[in-house]
Amino acid sequence: MPVLQPIVNIAELLHQKGITDIVVSPGSRSAPLTLAVARHPHLHVRVMADERSACFVALGMALQTRRTVGVICTSGSAVYNLAPAVSEAFFGQAPLLLLTADRPHEWLHQQDGQTIHQVGIFGEHVKRSYDLPADYTHPDARWFIERTLNEAITLTQLSPAGPVHVNVPLREPFYPTNEETFTYESVRTIEVCAAQPTLTADTWHRLLTEWDQSERTVIAVGQLPYDPALLAVLRKLSEETGVVVLGEIVGNIPRNDLFITRTDTFLAGITEPEAHSLQPELLLTIGNSFLTRNLKTFLRQYPARRHWHIQPTVDRINDSFQSLTTLIPATPLAFLEKLFADLDYQRFLQGDDDDEDDRHAFQNQWLQMDREATRLVEKTLAAPTDTLTDWSAVRRILDQLPALSILHLANSMPVRYANLCGVDERRQISVSSNRGVSGIDGCLSTAVGAALMTDKLVTLLIGDVAFFYDRNALWSAPVPSNLRIILLNNDSGHIFRIIDGPSRQPELETYFETPHGYTARNTAQDAGLTYLPCESLDALEEALGDFFKPADAAKLLELKTNKQANQDQFLAYKASVKAYQSR
Amino acid sequence: MPVLQPIVNIAELLHQKGITDIVVSPGSRSAPLTLAVARHPHLHVRVMADERSACFVALGMALQTRRTVGVICTSGSAVYNLAPAVSEAFFGQAPLLLLTADRPHEWLHQQDGQTIHQVGIFGEHVKRSYDLPADYTHPDARWFIERTLNEAITLTQLSPAGPVHVNVPLREPFYPTNEETFTYESVRTIEVCAAQPTLTADTWHRLLTEWDQSERTVIAVGQLPYDPALLAVLRKLSEETGVVVLGEIVGNIPRNDLFITRTDTFLAGITEPEAHSLQPELLLTIGNSFLTRNLKTFLRQYPARRHWHIQPTVDRINDSFQSLTTLIPATPLAFLEKLFADLDYQRFLQGDDDDEDDRHAFQNQWLQMDREATRLVEKTLAAPTDTLTDWSAVRRILDQLPALSILHLANSMPVRYANLCGVDERRQISVSSNRGVSGIDGCLSTAVGAALMTDKLVTLLIGDVAFFYDRNALWSAPVPSNLRIILLNNDSGHIFRIIDGPSRQPELETYFETPHGYTARNTAQDAGLTYLPCESLDALEEALGDFFKPADAAKLLELKTNKQANQDQFLAYKASVKAYQSR
Repeated sequence: MPVLQPIVNIAELLHQKGITDIVVSPGSRSAPLTLAVARHPHLHVRVMADERSACFVALGMALQTRRTVGVICTSGSAVYNLAPAVSEAFFGQAPLLLLTADRPHEWLHQQDGQTIHQVGIFGEHVKRSYDLPADYTHPDARWFIERTLNEAITLTQLSPAGPVHVNVPLREPFYPTNEETFTYESVRTIEVCAAQPTLTADTWHRLLTEWDQSERTVIAVGQLPYDPALLAVLRKLSEETGVVVLGEIVGNIPRNDLFITRTDTFLAGITEPEAHSLQPELLLTIGNSFLTRNLKTFLRQYPARRHWHIQPTVDRINDSFQSLTTLIPATPLAFLEKLFADLDYQRFLQGDDDDEDDRHAFQNQWLQMDREATRLVEKTLAAPTDTLTDWSAVRRILDQLPALSILHLANSMPVRYANLCGVDERRQISVSSNRGVSGIDGCLSTAVGAALMTDKLVTLLIGDVAFFYDRNALWSAPVPSNLRIILLNNDSGHIFRIIDGPSRQPELETYFETPHGYTARNTAQDAGLTYLPCESLDALEEALGDFFKPADAAKLLELKTNKQANQDQFLAYKASVKAYQSR
Repeated sequence: MPVLQPIVNIAELLHQKGITDIVVSPGSRSAPLTLAVARHPHLHVRVMADERSACFVALGMALQTRRTVGVICTSGSAVYNLAPAVSEAFFGQAPLLLLTADRPHEWLHQQDGQTIHQVGIFGEHVKRSYDLPADYTHPDARWFIERTLNEAITLTQLSPAGPVHVNVPLREPFYPTNEETFTYESVRTIEVCAAQPTLTADTWHRLLTEWDQSERTVIAVGQLPYDPALLAVLRKLSEETGVVVLGEIVGNIPRNDLFITRTDTFLAGITEPEAHSLQPELLLTIGNSFLTRNLKTFLRQYPARRHWHIQPTVDRINDSFQSLTTLIPATPLAFLEKLFADLDYQRFLQGDDDDEDDRHAFQNQWLQMDREATRLVEKTLAAPTDTLTDWSAVRRILDQLPALSILHLANSMPVRYANLCGVDERRQISVSSNRGVSGIDGCLSTAVGAALMTDKLVTLLIGDVAFFYDRNALWSAPVPSNLRIILLNNDSGHIFRIIDGPSRQPELETYFETPHGYTARNTAQDAGLTYLPCESLDALEEALGDFFKPADAAKLLELKTNKQANQDQFLAYKASVKAYQSR
């Protein structure tokens, strides 16, 4: 057996356990892992030099496919460059297997290069951290490696999915000699059976009773992937039981006649009587984080008497509205489908619900607020302006997104503008955003990763700070041609001008916005992207005609917007919301 | 007292404890810290959007001045972006004070944005990690904050210097109102007196006896900052006692008639009889890591009977040559100066040393090897070639560096080529390189940071992968005009072609070198640098005439070299070394 055979076998184990894609950053200590996956006939390996981008790309791949993606890097600070994406993967529940090469531990603090404390380096931001042995002579060491990889890969997928770290100390020599053949031995895979959490009949009975007692029920949808089946059951529940379904763009709740999506607008400075008229008796939440502060504040200030949160695992109490009464171990879709079926059967047995009118009246109050909010937003966007603004641009873009395509929203303002605009249900757009930690650091890389794993068009809306921050996403590996980047370049961290606190400080420009004067022309040219600059709404309209068409290279549409016009538009919007509330 | 007064006071405490410079990355949660330092009349605040670059810039500033530099960032993955530089600062012993804004801890896992496990997030890569209280109503909380900052700042400087983390949870509201005045209260600083470790007379006596018993003594200098006083005492010791002084470019051991700097060449494949003739009886080491493997391998394979390592703190046993017998708590300069004085006095009392001839014979053997190595390197570089190579370029550049200027060497090949060339003692060049962890990730930012803190010229030699990896160093803050970047662009991670293992693999180009096709023209233009491309030795010669002259903007000289020519030159060199060894 060649010395490093157990390391070579890891590649076979990845394959056997269903991993198909690996992102590798070059390194010498990591060479045995790199060669093992690169030579494996069934693994698709992509190489990116910047580990920070590499790991965000892997995150985008994992989010797109919901399959585990492997990440390989060399020892030393390379490992720490994975950390921003690891924290997003942990809170954003993306399955990543992090294979970090290491020097054998006896070399720590012996002034050897690229040697840091890698064991457990990601702290609580991985589901578990393993450390493989550096010596393989004893058979138990090889058993340990095989068993550990089995467990680690399984663990990435167990709900909630997330990153798992396997540290791999490697002794020299780690390059095979010219004579050495490279064979993948048969490996032992351990199947871990899947199971769904199932509530007892008693529990269901109790929950249904509670449901029946509420005439004012709201289902609030936090961040979730696009799921037509979930949307269908939410629609049925809403139509037939009068329950209010509300959500945001990051929860993939689209605009239609039934879902409440304008909460950020109409809950801003809502009057107390109005708030009371909207206050739920029973609140059901599914999904992860909510985007807008106005919704969170409302649900905290006007808490439901009963609050159920539905999530597959219940080891952590997520009480983000400070009103949780019941944590229900279930997948949202399964729970809601059974809930609908039970309610339907109940109605079949008992006939129409006496409280149905009250329920629909409650629903109508929410719907009316949502329609008023739509009117306010439309008024804001209809105001005549010669200047291209971020918000107007985002609205125009979202209206023209190709059906069935994928939309990535970078953090800071793009995701907020997009949520204020919403996407139409009929377009069936799948929306994705790094809302686990909500950093700007890897939004471009994440979109690149998603585009690598689909033939669909992936459109990224991104601001200038996030774009330049993460431009290494476009370096050192071909950019997939189905990627469309729309860069809202207002030459600053524009959010600081929009939110209330920093915009009042004399330090706004120097210490918060940090204007840089960059355009993306050079970055696009270096990366081989088709570059389209645009400075007016008309030009945008014209550019969008071709922009989404298939092409041989990815495209970057750079919108130069004016920060003052952006601010003015947003202030006019806030003023009109305020005027409406105090009518 | 305004609610956040204890946070405002931190700025005053930084000032009182001698901190002058802060690097800030924009954020909202961190706004109270940002405003506190930005409004302080005696703190110089610089803003950089990318936290990874920001922290490496701070590292460069701290290494240049040996003073503590503050780093401020917002909560969430922003903090993890500091981590690569933090690990380099820890192993490279640079004093950094990391002030990370955080949400109050009760919001962890409550689906709030930018909320991760920040307490202790840098693990063992900071000297200590503190967590401030989020509430300041109790006076003990304010006492805790004041005392903690006193301790944290002191700790950054205590030997070995390094990064210290202070996590700062902050409640809203964190922006002052328009009416709120902003005053710095008087703060209490706690002086921590400095002391030097001092050996007892007994210990000195014992060490001097051991010294006298060795006729074959080597002082090997690991990485250390440039220090003329240290060079002076090393020269005196060498001249008067026949001790061999050897070192590398990262230890700031320059080329002269006495110091041994070509070990990487002449220890490569040394014959056994030669090795025995060079084997020390007593080895003294000072400084941190050594660069070249050949030196490390030699000292492990031919260990000294006695090995003293001199470092100010002795809580860790650094036994990197696996032969350590004596760890001596002392600063290298103080120890060597006392050693020389004692030896001198002993000689005054006892007359000339009987073994002096033997000692100088041993020294001559090393000197002769060094001269032979010089001849071999010169022969390699003299070989006629039409093609510009990295090595020839580096030699030409080092020969023309302005006296008293600062040289930064990026990791991977530039530092190795520069070590093969060396710098002449008479030029008094101060050499710096990120050899704590030896990553390529922040070399450009580190040089930017150094240039910010000096009026001297700072020249950075860097390869293309390291340059593009870290190009955000040039974004979002003005690049200091005294910076000169010389980019060795061979369109790949060239080291993989030079070292033995990967160059033999069919995966060399795809999975290790990762060619990208970038030139730095666009990057330089975006950043407002003067850009000078260069493709021949003659053109380089011509360009260097003006390149080092003062200018209004930083300059980037991009050398396009051929990877095959680089490899051929290196292989020719290795062949000539081998031919010499087997003569």
